[in-house]
Amino acid sequence: MSSSFKTIALIGKHKNPDIVAPLLSLGRYMEKRNLEVLLDQATAAVVAEAKYPAVTMEEIGIRADLAIVLGGDGTMLNIARKLAPFNVPLVGINQGRLGFLTDLSIDSMLETLGSMLDGQYFKERRMLLYVEALALNDVAVNRGIGGNMIEFEVHINGEYVYSLRSDGLIVASPTGSTAYALSSGGPILHPSLDLIALVPVSPHTLSNRPIVVGPDAVVEILMHHTAVARVHSDSHSHYDLRQDDKVVVRRSPHTVTLLHASDHSYYRMLREKLGWSGIPRNQA
Amino acid sequence: MSSSFKTIALIGKHKNPDIVAPLLSLGRYMEKRNLEVLLDQATAAVVAEAKYPAVTMEEIGIRADLAIVLGGDGTMLNIARKLAPFNVPLVGINQGRLGFLTDLSIDSMLETLGSMLDGQYFKERRMLLYVEALALNDVAVNRGIGGNMIEFEVHINGEYVYSLRSDGLIVASPTGSTAYALSSGGPILHPSLDLIALVPVSPHTLSNRPIVVGPDAVVEILMHHTAVARVHSDSHSHYDLRQDDKVVVRRSPHTVTLLHASDHSYYRMLREKLGWSGIPRNQA
Amino acid sequence: MSSSFKTIALIGKHKNPDIVAPLLSLGRYMEKRNLEVLLDQATAAVVAEAKYPAVTMEEIGIRADLAIVLGGDGTMLNIARKLAPFNVPLVGINQGRLGFLTDLSIDSMLETLGSMLDGQYFKERRMLLYVEALALNDVAVNRGIGGNMIEFEVHINGEYVYSLRSDGLIVASPTGSTAYALSSGGPILHPSLDLIALVPVSPHTLSNRPIVVGPDAVVEILMHHTAVARVHSDSHSHYDLRQDDKVVVRRSPHTVTLLHASDHSYYRMLREKLGWSGIPRNQA
Amino acid sequence: MSSSFKTIALIGKHKNPDIVAPLLSLGRYMEKRNLEVLLDQATAAVVAEAKYPAVTMEEIGIRADLAIVLGGDGTMLNIARKLAPFNVPLVGINQGRLGFLTDLSIDSMLETLGSMLDGQYFKERRMLLYVEALALNDVAVNRGIGGNMIEFEVHINGEYVYSLRSDGLIVASPTGSTAYALSSGGPILHPSLDLIALVPVSPHTLSNRPIVVGPDAVVEILMHHTAVARVHSDSHSHYDLRQDDKVVVRRSPHTVTLLHASDHSYYRMLREKLGWSGIPRNQA
Repeated sequence: MSSSFKTIALIGKHKNPDIVAPLLSLGRYMEKRNLEVLLDQATAAVVAEAKYPAVTMEEIGIRADLAIVLGGDGTMLNIARKLAPFNVPLVGINQGRLGFLTDLSIDSMLETLGSMLDGQYFKERRMLLYVEALALNDVAVNRGIGGNMIEFEVHINGEYVYSLRSDGLIVASPTGSTAYALSSGGPILHPSLDLIALVPVSPHTLSNRPIVVGPDAVVEILMHHTAVARVHSDSHSHYDLRQDDKVVVRRSPHTVTLLHASDHSYYRMLREKLGWSGIPRNQA
Repeated sequence: MSSSFKTIALIGKHKNPDIVAPLLSLGRYMEKRNLEVLLDQATAAVVAEAKYPAVTMEEIGIRADLAIVLGGDGTMLNIARKLAPFNVPLVGINQGRLGFLTDLSIDSMLETLGSMLDGQYFKERRMLLYVEALALNDVAVNRGIGGNMIEFEVHINGEYVYSLRSDGLIVASPTGSTAYALSSGGPILHPSLDLIALVPVSPHTLSNRPIVVGPDAVVEILMHHTAVARVHSDSHSHYDLRQDDKVVVRRSPHTVTLLHASDHSYYRMLREKLGWSGIPRNQA
Repeated sequence: MSSSFKTIALIGKHKNPDIVAPLLSLGRYMEKRNLEVLLDQATAAVVAEAKYPAVTMEEIGIRADLAIVLGGDGTMLNIARKLAPFNVPLVGINQGRLGFLTDLSIDSMLETLGSMLDGQYFKERRMLLYVEALALNDVAVNRGIGGNMIEFEVHINGEYVYSLRSDGLIVASPTGSTAYALSSGGPILHPSLDLIALVPVSPHTLSNRPIVVGPDAVVEILMHHTAVARVHSDSHSHYDLRQDDKVVVRRSPHTVTLLHASDHSYYRMLREKLGWSGIPRNQA
Repeated sequence: MSSSFKTIALIGKHKNPDIVAPLLSLGRYMEKRNLEVLLDQATAAVVAEAKYPAVTMEEIGIRADLAIVLGGDGTMLNIARKLAPFNVPLVGINQGRLGFLTDLSIDSMLETLGSMLDGQYFKERRMLLYVEALALNDVAVNRGIGGNMIEFEVHINGEYVYSLRSDGLIVASPTGSTAYALSSGGPILHPSLDLIALVPVSPHTLSNRPIVVGPDAVVEILMHHTAVARVHSDSHSHYDLRQDDKVVVRRSPHTVTLLHASDHSYYRMLREKLGWSGIPRNQA
């Protein structure tokens, strides 16, 4: 089973010197298991270890059987989008704080990765969204610097859904359902599902609520007379919108494959991340 | 195309004299089209028209090619659950106020049904839930007459999800997502999807939010020390729960098939029912 | 300053043997300071210490300069309502978990109480509600055992406000604003304010939102055709309501005075109780 | 009673030709009642009627006993802020859609104003906020054009309240509680109260909820490392914020006085504006 991973790419959080020691530790471990190690270029610039080849993301996509990402969920989102076209499975290692996508702890990473390389893992496929750029979490149309709400209408598969005045609209994947969308009142969508949630931000129409549609929905957002609005993919600033501009969000043909240790539990992660301690506050 | 419907069952709102005239009008119309008309027994007791056979729901299930229901969504829910094992498609006619399930208007019912019998319709299949009884909308565990919140834990497919103190928990289908669950902050799930939403009612843990899981989830709700709790299916009172009682909610093997006129639009219905008028309130 | 407290009442959580040791420790400490100690009757039955007089709540109300309550917020609510007519200030000691009303820790109680008896404290006055019974937190009208929402209309100072179908309506004081009302989406009202919040539970009208009115508002809730509804004060089961019954909630002429240690902070308590750790979840 | 109003200022929506006819009608009506009419300069430029003196806002503030504003709530907000230092009571006339501040209908304006000039009115005083500019509705700190949430901490009267990552924070008066803050989940504060609500927009900490504090609270918002944030007063764009910038919001010493017709009802306005029709949606 272990034989399925021959070439391992190591990728660290951008320009972060704290990752050097654990990355080298990972590299040595992979060498001991007779695995080929690749370093992504940006990571190599920080690590400065001559013995592993520094390669582009595209080369990682073509050559690696597994990409190990060391950093937070932000790093993971970034790398996942870049590797999505190549179908390389990803493992995320957090640097101390459990992430929704980086579920391995740095403290036990060698032990856990050892078991995973021995076959103790399961695969999880995550859908991506597309809006002139890939988004693993969400595509959001937000008001820009103006003081007023933006106005737009939403169509799904060519059918008019609603017009809205609001601070914005978040189009989220299940992966993104625990990110920005959750703060705006959206539901948690189990990541095994392929679904798209439309979550309004501070909607003027108080009865406007999040809607969940199927993965093949083509979501069109048509801007009304709006001074300044902006589209963001995965919270990266993207481009401005003017009146009559149309944003089209659809599922991407690519998916991202995450590997989790066999004892990983999505619900346990939710409990930990969201503080569902079960300890009640007192009654007053 | 019209030939696919040969036997039509007519069912009216329970004990409501207002349905007599429109039901007779429907009956005459069906006769003119040379269709066989069945009347359900309870409806027949109100209509008191000798010429149509009064039959049980089971007979309707076996013999009818189409069941036309005249009443509100409550009537429709009731009939849909009863006919679910028989796969008879349903059409709902409201008595003046558009329903989520009763989308034909009584004012234009003959015209619309005529087109539908000529083949101008589309089918929509809706999933049902099961908890020792069928539920088309939802299964809810609520506190009973006591003044305190109830406490329980939730497991999905055998995996522990969370413990919660709250006023209740709603397990809703997409059909039920616009009913009780929506009032409690749940998302709208498009009815073409097979999904299950878990929506807490007034959760003590403020970060506990609605979760959407796949249709094959088996949801177990295990009661902690709770004075009084109650399970309801589709808001029908069902049975009391005591400490350590377990409620198991899963998808039913049955589905309900609704027929809609070809120009029916789910999103337009949402706009009308939820008051998404698009007319903004002023700014102060 | 210390001289203002001459007679101290000690009150423990009902029938809880864990309070015996700390109560005796409190008693000895008060004796050392030459203060008279009273024990409430129910507490005395558990403590069984002959040397302190066991008195009724009424006697405590008349004779004590300070009542020290050892227990959770539930105990505190109960005692505060009983002593409200007598204007005895209260101090709450929790048994390990910080309470909204019981803000002294049992581990440092002697030290903190010592400072407070030396004058290091501040007073906080809390308003109460009245609905044929005192309520420090809230008066709630909830559905009873039926599966349907209840229907009612709300009038304030004789003026019609709205009709609503919902799971219930919570009329909360600032003290109660962090209890049940918070779980149902109500705002946090600073306890220094005299205000009344009306918070709907799972309202059918999605645009119905919590309303905050002044302390002199007389809130009338008139029941429509409702199978089963119930009024609760501070989550204590109270009485059933039938059609056309009217619940009148108003401010009580009494108030409750709480004493806090000088370094007590309401906002810090909110942060601790509500988990406003400031530690962000990751971005995915 | 009528004699208390001798000089009436007429003010119309900025650059809107639709106001000319009704303003002239108002002018003629005031002349008939032997009242002096003033026109604000900007309005005069549109009306172009020589016979009424065109004066500055400051002159209106000094000379007028009543200012009649014709336009929407946006116009009313603008004029109310400008006249706040002068204590001139205001009446708002909407152009067809009921406003929260413009409660007279243009169709019956002469009749209603006639009664009001005869003494059939009541006064309502509204508090204002101040943040280097007056705000009648709210002061909002929002993220600017960046794709990330902003981070800040809140202090009230010098005491630390919480740190938050969110899309923004709205500091709202009771007047503003039915505007932007309501869309973000804030409570409705009765306008007779002097209160300040802090309402987070899409808070990352899911348990962070709106807080209501007294009118003398000094609210300080201290920006953490934030790329782009913006302060807006009453949705007017104001200024950018950088790291360590501090926004201080407090009550203004000024108030605004609104006059309402005697039969005006705040709750009826809420019902109309927010669609609390009381007509339930069906049950499915």
